[in-house]
Amino acid sequence: MITFSATENIYIDTNPAKRAYQKIQENPMSGWLTIPTPETNLEDIKLTAQKINADSDFLICIGIGGSYLGHRAIIEALGNNSKTKILYAGNSLSTKSLHKIINEIGDANFSLNVISKSGTTTEPAIAFRILKQKLIEKYGEEEAANRIYATTDSKNGALKSEATKNDYKAFIIPDNIGGRYSVLTPVGLLPLAVAGLNIDDFIHGANELFKNPEPAYQYAILRTLCAERGYDTEVLATFDPEMHYFAEWWKQLFGESEGKNHQGIFPASVIYTTDLHSLGQYIQEGRRNIFETFIGFKDAKEDLTIPESVEDLDSLNYLAGKSLTYVNKKAYEATVDAHRAGGIPVFEIKIDGQIDETSLGGLIAFFELSCAISATLQNVDPFNQPGVEAYKTNMFRLLGKPGYTN
Amino acid sequence: MITFSATENIYIDTNPAKRAYQKIQENPMSGWLTIPTPETNLEDIKLTAQKINADSDFLICIGIGGSYLGHRAIIEALGNNSKTKILYAGNSLSTKSLHKIINEIGDANFSLNVISKSGTTTEPAIAFRILKQKLIEKYGEEEAANRIYATTDSKNGALKSEATKNDYKAFIIPDNIGGRYSVLTPVGLLPLAVAGLNIDDFIHGANELFKNPEPAYQYAILRTLCAERGYDTEVLATFDPEMHYFAEWWKQLFGESEGKNHQGIFPASVIYTTDLHSLGQYIQEGRRNIFETFIGFKDAKEDLTIPESVEDLDSLNYLAGKSLTYVNKKAYEATVDAHRAGGIPVFEIKIDGQIDETSLGGLIAFFELSCAISATLQNVDPFNQPGVEAYKTNMFRLLGKPGYTN
Repeated sequence: MITFSATENIYIDTNPAKRAYQKIQENPMSGWLTIPTPETNLEDIKLTAQKINADSDFLICIGIGGSYLGHRAIIEALGNNSKTKILYAGNSLSTKSLHKIINEIGDANFSLNVISKSGTTTEPAIAFRILKQKLIEKYGEEEAANRIYATTDSKNGALKSEATKNDYKAFIIPDNIGGRYSVLTPVGLLPLAVAGLNIDDFIHGANELFKNPEPAYQYAILRTLCAERGYDTEVLATFDPEMHYFAEWWKQLFGESEGKNHQGIFPASVIYTTDLHSLGQYIQEGRRNIFETFIGFKDAKEDLTIPESVEDLDSLNYLAGKSLTYVNKKAYEATVDAHRAGGIPVFEIKIDGQIDETSLGGLIAFFELSCAISATLQNVDPFNQPGVEAYKTNMFRLLGKPGYTN
Repeated sequence: MITFSATENIYIDTNPAKRAYQKIQENPMSGWLTIPTPETNLEDIKLTAQKINADSDFLICIGIGGSYLGHRAIIEALGNNSKTKILYAGNSLSTKSLHKIINEIGDANFSLNVISKSGTTTEPAIAFRILKQKLIEKYGEEEAANRIYATTDSKNGALKSEATKNDYKAFIIPDNIGGRYSVLTPVGLLPLAVAGLNIDDFIHGANELFKNPEPAYQYAILRTLCAERGYDTEVLATFDPEMHYFAEWWKQLFGESEGKNHQGIFPASVIYTTDLHSLGQYIQEGRRNIFETFIGFKDAKEDLTIPESVEDLDSLNYLAGKSLTYVNKKAYEATVDAHRAGGIPVFEIKIDGQIDETSLGGLIAFFELSCAISATLQNVDPFNQPGVEAYKTNMFRLLGKPGYTN
């Protein structure tokens, strides 16, 4: 269960959000509202994950942007429960990063999950060429083909063609779902299943939110109001360091959906209490164009207790016997109050659960839905990203790609 | 050698920056301009690092904010060349993070470097209590004291008292250097030395910049101009994923120095090309209140070559035989041009060197100096952080700390 609350106990008219939701449902790119998608066979994903767990010490997920951030966000947040370690390639052009992966694999057994609708996006395509070569060197062509899993278009594109030709196991990214809305499709589900995570719970959590979308309406309405009033930067705040990549996923979702036509809310994130000793000063007392959205989970079960000290030189004995989780929770409350007092509109997304598959599935759906609504309310298309082409066109020209030279 | 260039080839009058620099030199908190500081014995740091390398599989650095981010930034960027792995504790109140460290250590040998001017900052003080208990359980009181290294005040504070009483080896954080300007003191130098990095080169790189501060003047002047013209968010961009924590260090430096009196430039960061598939859309086409600062190093030596493919299904053969580093460099140039064309003021900090101790020392000095100047030009104190107290006061009250209850 997810609830939403704002700085003050104000009445929020969510009717504009409901109308926006109706428009979104009619949009051809709204496939992410129906999960699992009709093309997705959950049993097949689970069986494939079992095969990978049985024959691979490493699964290298090759993808960038929406083909990367969602599953990494969930796996970093929940940890890996399987013996197959997940690595991430093709999300940059860094030589050092790819070398690091190759060195980490060493002589161990590995497989590739290449995730790309087209198969021609430069970063993952390069990584796939290099890692496929390693795979073939190690296993030969036939067994290499057995160890390549392609998550791609159902009919078109370079990767689909290659998968068909070489008989790679393939999973479908539906036509009606864009990259940043795709984590609940096989794009995210296969890596999650390989990491030993419960994909049924993940999907269930998301569907619960889609059935009870009111909190997402409220968030969408209020952040749009903030933007109208000159609060043009949103800071997503969590008190759990393992949520770092979740915040990165959130930044892509909102930044790509809303940052168009010289408008949109700039998405930034912090991990507290770490960043209270960094960006905290700015948020408390800097330019007042910021609003802040806190994510609060229920306490984790596992805990550490603060020991007593005879001398109490550090004056911490007032906390002796208390748990670290308790102190973190009080820091959360203290920060919400401090930032409100400092003139920051503060929103809270409260999750009635610990950080697990169900709660994160719900949170993914919460943000997908509120993002699509929020962009619609700001009169921009939530599902395109025309600006991403600008650097690509320049790069292809500089690299001498056929058709781009001038 | 560091050079600075701006969007257009404009004349920059750096005289206001020079005058600000003079004011800074007269400021009692300008000790970071003289490195190593008079209190620092580099040989002692190196010998201590050798002892830790000889007797410890892990060194846990306990600190938050400026007692944490600087050395982590350098060690993550350069990697660890020693057999002693560095872990970081006390930089949050996360139970999971501390459990992870305790689990990672297991039965291995470890030591603690507790870094805190006062010794009473909540996050590191709690982590120190818990980890000191583990250390004493494993080694007994006497040997535990041999494995605790305190980087702290020369005379005052709880940690200094404890270090004196228990005869911990201690290193000095000078009175005239604040946390976020402290990485070139023992705060950063001891962890760097333990990681097998060359602290002489690190210091040398910084001093070279202090001797030739003109590029830092230019950056300080131009970012201040940007702020005056309504560009109130700065995005620091690198093409090297290992620079992630460096960007976090940079955010603290500028955010805490400038974010006061309801003004200041909001510091954000991106890692490209990863984030060209995330925040890239916003930066290309979103709200035009952003300026962008690129960090460009010389190419790394180690490289990977893109292989030829007979079928060329992915249409990448035009890159066959080219190195990944080459493609990354072209992506850099393409992005600078695309964002300029999109209406973003773009600055470039070019380093005539690879990512190493010398270049990072220079970059640290470049940013420290330009930050102090930039804050001075914006009429705020570069060296205080009054807003950090707000959440602490609330938290102490909620936790019932003596003296804070109402």
